Amino acid sequence: MIVCIVRNFAAAVAWEAGKPLVIEEVEVAPPQAMEVRVKILFTSLCHTDVYFWEAKGQTPVFPRIFGHEAAGIVESVGEGVTELKPGDHVLPVFTGECKECRHCKSEESNMCDLLRINTERGVMLNDGKSRFSINGKPIYHFVGTSTFSEYTVIHVGCVAKINPEAPLDKVCVLSCGISTGLGATINVAKPGKGSTVAIFGLGAVGLAAAEGARIAGASRIIGIDLNPNRFEDAKKFGVTEFLNPKDYDKPIQQVIAEMTDGGVDRSVECTGNFNAMISAFECVHDGWGVAVLVGVPSRDDAFKTHPMNVLNERTLKGTFFGNFKPRTDLPSVVEMYMNKELEVEKFITHQVTFSEINKAFDLMLSGAGLRCIIRMDG
Amino acid sequence: MIVCIVRNFAAAVAWEAGKPLVIEEVEVAPPQAMEVRVKILFTSLCHTDVYFWEAKGQTPVFPRIFGHEAAGIVESVGEGVTELKPGDHVLPVFTGECKECRHCKSEESNMCDLLRINTERGVMLNDGKSRFSINGKPIYHFVGTSTFSEYTVIHVGCVAKINPEAPLDKVCVLSCGISTGLGATINVAKPGKGSTVAIFGLGAVGLAAAEGARIAGASRIIGIDLNPNRFEDAKKFGVTEFLNPKDYDKPIQQVIAEMTDGGVDRSVECTGNFNAMISAFECVHDGWGVAVLVGVPSRDDAFKTHPMNVLNERTLKGTFFGNFKPRTDLPSVVEMYMNKELEVEKFITHQVTFSEINKAFDLMLSGAGLRCIIRMDG
Ligand SMILES: NC(=O)c1ccc[n+]([C@@H]2O[C@H](COP(=O)([O-])OP(=O)(O)OC[C@H]3O[C@@H](n4cnc5c(N)ncnc54)[C@H](O)[C@@H]3O)[C@@H](O)[C@H]2O)c1
Ligand SMILES: NC(=O)c1ccc[n+]([C@@H]2O[C@H](COP(=O)([O-])OP(=O)(O)OC[C@H]3O[C@@H](n4cnc5c(N)ncnc54)[C@H](O)[C@@H]3O)[C@@H](O)[C@H]2O)c1
Ligand SMILES: [Zn+2]
Ligand SMILES: [Zn+2]
Ligand SMILES: [Zn+2]
Ligand SMILES: [Zn+2]
Repeated sequence: MIVCIVRNFAAAVAWEAGKPLVIEEVEVAPPQAMEVRVKILFTSLCHTDVYFWEAKGQTPVFPRIFGHEAAGIVESVGEGVTELKPGDHVLPVFTGECKECRHCKSEESNMCDLLRINTERGVMLNDGKSRFSINGKPIYHFVGTSTFSEYTVIHVGCVAKINPEAPLDKVCVLSCGISTGLGATINVAKPGKGSTVAIFGLGAVGLAAAEGARIAGASRIIGIDLNPNRFEDAKKFGVTEFLNPKDYDKPIQQVIAEMTDGGVDRSVECTGNFNAMISAFECVHDGWGVAVLVGVPSRDDAFKTHPMNVLNERTLKGTFFGNFKPRTDLPSVVEMYMNKELEVEKFITHQVTFSEINKAFDLMLSGAGLRCIIRMDG
Repeated sequence: MIVCIVRNFAAAVAWEAGKPLVIEEVEVAPPQAMEVRVKILFTSLCHTDVYFWEAKGQTPVFPRIFGHEAAGIVESVGEGVTELKPGDHVLPVFTGECKECRHCKSEESNMCDLLRINTERGVMLNDGKSRFSINGKPIYHFVGTSTFSEYTVIHVGCVAKINPEAPLDKVCVLSCGISTGLGATINVAKPGKGSTVAIFGLGAVGLAAAEGARIAGASRIIGIDLNPNRFEDAKKFGVTEFLNPKDYDKPIQQVIAEMTDGGVDRSVECTGNFNAMISAFECVHDGWGVAVLVGVPSRDDAFKTHPMNVLNERTLKGTFFGNFKPRTDLPSVVEMYMNKELEVEKFITHQVTFSEINKAFDLMLSGAGLRCIIRMDG
């Protein structure tokens, strides 16, 4: 029998767009059918949290609990949950895998019809309500995870069960940006050994894409960023050459073609800027080049190129969460870390306690470092 | 020892842009190093011949001998030619395979650096001269093949040796458009059994792409063309449904998405129109859809789409000559015909004798039929 009780825990509540989070005592309802309640041990901050917290030009959904990169332990499970039990070590994921829809059944897609990311919804699917409340008033969810809370309720399809030996203060960063960049390279661009790869944008996602290229055995990894401060860090991630488009008076795709005898074998765009997307496509070699887009563009951007660039046997692909199926594939990303194939530590540049969570926002807004871990027990 | 003699043969010479061809007695020089002289038995007419014969907005290269879809028999070979000998049955190809460059060595590309199609060059690579002349004045080559001639000289890299049992009056159509459409589907789009495929443009290339989808086991093949006359013919090529964009007041990609529960699995664009290219990309399903561009666009066209269409895991690819490597792969396309997998007869709608070659031009200009075979012995 499952005993379901509402409990009070600390959570960092965003009461208003752009205002510092406030640690509050929040009631967390028990998990309903196909939901689990998870004790979060470590969470980290990603640009997407900051973007929806700033809520510029968006329909505001407040008060809200942000957070979607995290690791924790299952505390209780709702009706119908058979794949998870209390005590399981898990990573919550902002996008899910129902295992029933056409996407989940396709080998190629991870864009689940039921649990695909939804940034506007602040409630659970089962009853259209929130599991968080203060004095009976709802506090809304964020992308189904809301990990800036000691406990959170998540749909079972958005929870990946991982190796219990994995250190949660490290692997917590694998549930969003780093897997996204890594997967974009190893699952989608698939560079061969000895190949040449261009990475546009050297934030956490781009550096993870570079890490993927290093793991795949690329011999030249060309990093492109408008911010020269990114270049020093990038060396640790296998980037062998650096280009700043601002240093050239011709299109960067032309510079790249000249230094690579016609173009790179693969490129991965991790900027969200449409000019970088176009350069990333046009810098791959004709005949076999593959460009992969990862960055999320603005509403009105257009991707534009002359059709001959396509006809000359170039391929353009897009990826969402690095084409990883959250439940099926994330456990093996954790194993890549456990086998020392994938280096995660170098992405973690800062650590704060839960009570200092607003510091993590300040660090990200000032552009310092890559990932800041927030310890929930602090 | 190779005995090299200049001989006089009949060829259809285009003296001026857009003027009827004139059958002339032409001197055909012996093949030089890495060249072969081929007796052409059958040739057919393709849009590309007509396009460069009209020569609108082009640097004119006249007098010239057109023709690039053909079948013949090797008459003599030049120095260094070891893979071909007199008597071999061959298909001349407008693009070549040197087997030495990065493209030829890549498994993915067929865009040979040395012998890639060049529509402006009217001479042979070896000495920068023509092998055709009348009274000592050069008559120029076209895409290295010039098959509207009883004999022609071709670089060995542009000649595919085929099964001597294959009927040359049928397989002659396999050296350009039909292989292009077929390969776009079976080599690049690669639809699975039971999948849904959209084909934009139901000319010879598009119908060959539909034939490829039929061979691959697609269960729905949706043909899209602005010309309703194309629809009756298309049934023979496995097309199961027809759409004319003119019949709808919304974008055709939207119509297709509605009739296929979100989009087709694969699309192949064979129109050369950039609006059709955009529709072909946007009509494939998110998560797994692949769109392949085949049509050759105008100089100033732009391919334009919102980057989210890419990010939602759609793939855009371009292909040249259906990704077939001419020497390595064309023999197996001929075998597909010999095994009755590929039906070639239905593409052949007309036949004329060599002396009637201008009739073939008239037929194409009036849009009648698909392929007109020109018998060289007639
Ligand atoms: N597809 C997905 O599933 C997914 C998941 C997570 C993040 N993302 C996206 O990935 C992108 C990168 O995320 P991040 O966290 O690394 O961001 P970030 O801001 O830390 O890094 C982006 C980098 O790109 C650089 N840049 C911007 N415009 C550029 C240009 N024109 N040329 C070269 N460099 C340029 C910036 O200087 C910056 O260093 C974002 O767009 C984010 O929304 C996508
Ligand atoms: N990539 C290659 O290697 C290669 C080789 C040969 C031919 N081609 C190209 O393939 C294309 C097709 O060749 P073809 O010989 O079949 O030509 P075609 O003119 O016989 O057929 C093209 C068809 O497209 C239709 N069409 C035009 N615009 C359209 C639109 N917006 N929507 C729907 N239908 C539209 C026309 O009505 C016509 O029926 C041409 O662009 C040709 O240059 C490419
Ligand atoms: Zn699903
Ligand atoms: Zn994130
Ligand atoms: Zn042709
Ligand atoms: Zn070559």
